[in-house]
Amino acid sequence: MISRADMARRIDHTLLRSHATEAEVRQLCAEAAEHGFRAVSVNPAWVTFCAKLLRETHVLVDACVAFPLGAATARMKVEEAKEAVQNGARELDMVINLGALKSGYPDFVEREIAAVAAAVKGVSLKVILETGCLSRDEKVMVCEMALRSGAAFVKTATGFGPGGATAEDVALMREAVGDRLGVKAAGGVRTWGDALVMLQAGANVIGTSTGVAMLLEGPETPA
Amino acid sequence: MISRADMARRIDHTLLRSHATEAEVRQLCAEAAEHGFRAVSVNPAWVTFCAKLLRETHVLVDACVAFPLGAATARMKVEEAKEAVQNGARELDMVINLGALKSGYPDFVEREIAAVAAAVKGVSLKVILETGCLSRDEKVMVCEMALRSGAAFVKTATGFGPGGATAEDVALMREAVGDRLGVKAAGGVRTWGDALVMLQAGANVIGTSTGVAMLLEGPETPA
Repeated sequence: MISRADMARRIDHTLLRSHATEAEVRQLCAEAAEHGFRAVSVNPAWVTFCAKLLRETHVLVDACVAFPLGAATARMKVEEAKEAVQNGARELDMVINLGALKSGYPDFVEREIAAVAAAVKGVSLKVILETGCLSRDEKVMVCEMALRSGAAFVKTATGFGPGGATAEDVALMREAVGDRLGVKAAGGVRTWGDALVMLQAGANVIGTSTGVAMLLEGPETPA
Repeated sequence: MISRADMARRIDHTLLRSHATEAEVRQLCAEAAEHGFRAVSVNPAWVTFCAKLLRETHVLVDACVAFPLGAATARMKVEEAKEAVQNGARELDMVINLGALKSGYPDFVEREIAAVAAAVKGVSLKVILETGCLSRDEKVMVCEMALRSGAAFVKTATGFGPGGATAEDVALMREAVGDRLGVKAAGGVRTWGDALVMLQAGANVIGTSTGVAMLLEGPETPA
């Protein structure tokens, strides 16, 4: 049985709403430190602020780049990733160029992932598939690209697109990457039960904006 | 009575879906040229492609930057805007930093708008309010910032956030900017009737992904 503390260590505590305030981001960071979440996932404009708040903690700052559409240019993805790392991000969640993939340019997508990974060596790059937009074959293809390109994780969805994390997709992604990459389940993962299903399907990290409430649904630690 | 051709000249023909394909973007450009739309509104990754396709036409390429969350850093907004212009964009639609506005940093928001406008002089900058997130006072405040900062338009919404264009908001924005800036109504403007309502409320540009169908609802030109 997984404890609340174990679950917390797998959660990227997430606040990506465009109009989230400084007070809300501050609270996100405080909660992450208090509960022992592995990271806070935020938009680039908040990275410096979060990195300062979390300097004395084990909580990573995770910046979401080219988010949520993935339709920035490759050059801007690299620049945004580099700047986020300079500002204190230790992880990056990047959306692939879905349009290029759908247009039959997988090499473009792979080169873009590799360029971002190479630009931020030492930082974990999570490659967001946006599974709700992809066929089974496309999901597997992007996982294989991530394997070849220096990424650290594949991630299901942004939470802003069609669909979210499913156990079936997580299992497929885990099968595709084996134990060489992490698998982050994100998009509609809201309850303790949702998170357990994702972990059992093969995820090792959960992205959720409801981490605090989720933990309260977990088993109480013996006093 | 407004003709189909007059309406077309007010429409930014829009395709911002993350997984839009090259074929769809090509069709968007062909439709814009055929119907005489004022611009195509696309994500940055497609600007070079559209600029090439539309070189011999009067259709502007309009790049949506920091889109749709507006939560990139100010520096990246400037860089993305400059790159889009280098790639052939003649207009830019930029989302303001809503989080900064909501956190009580209006000066940050205004400096950011001014920095982007200054970086792309000669190119029309549209400032997206994301009206569904803002109070009446905030909407007016952002319009006043846009007036002071070298922007060319204020624009209602991204179409990805809460709410869309309303006649009330368009009228408020037109009142705030007078005749010194344009007002673009976007977000849920789908029919000829929707567009007429927006024009009557004070908009001079319409952003819509249904421009072709919309025109067919307009009055037929006498043969």
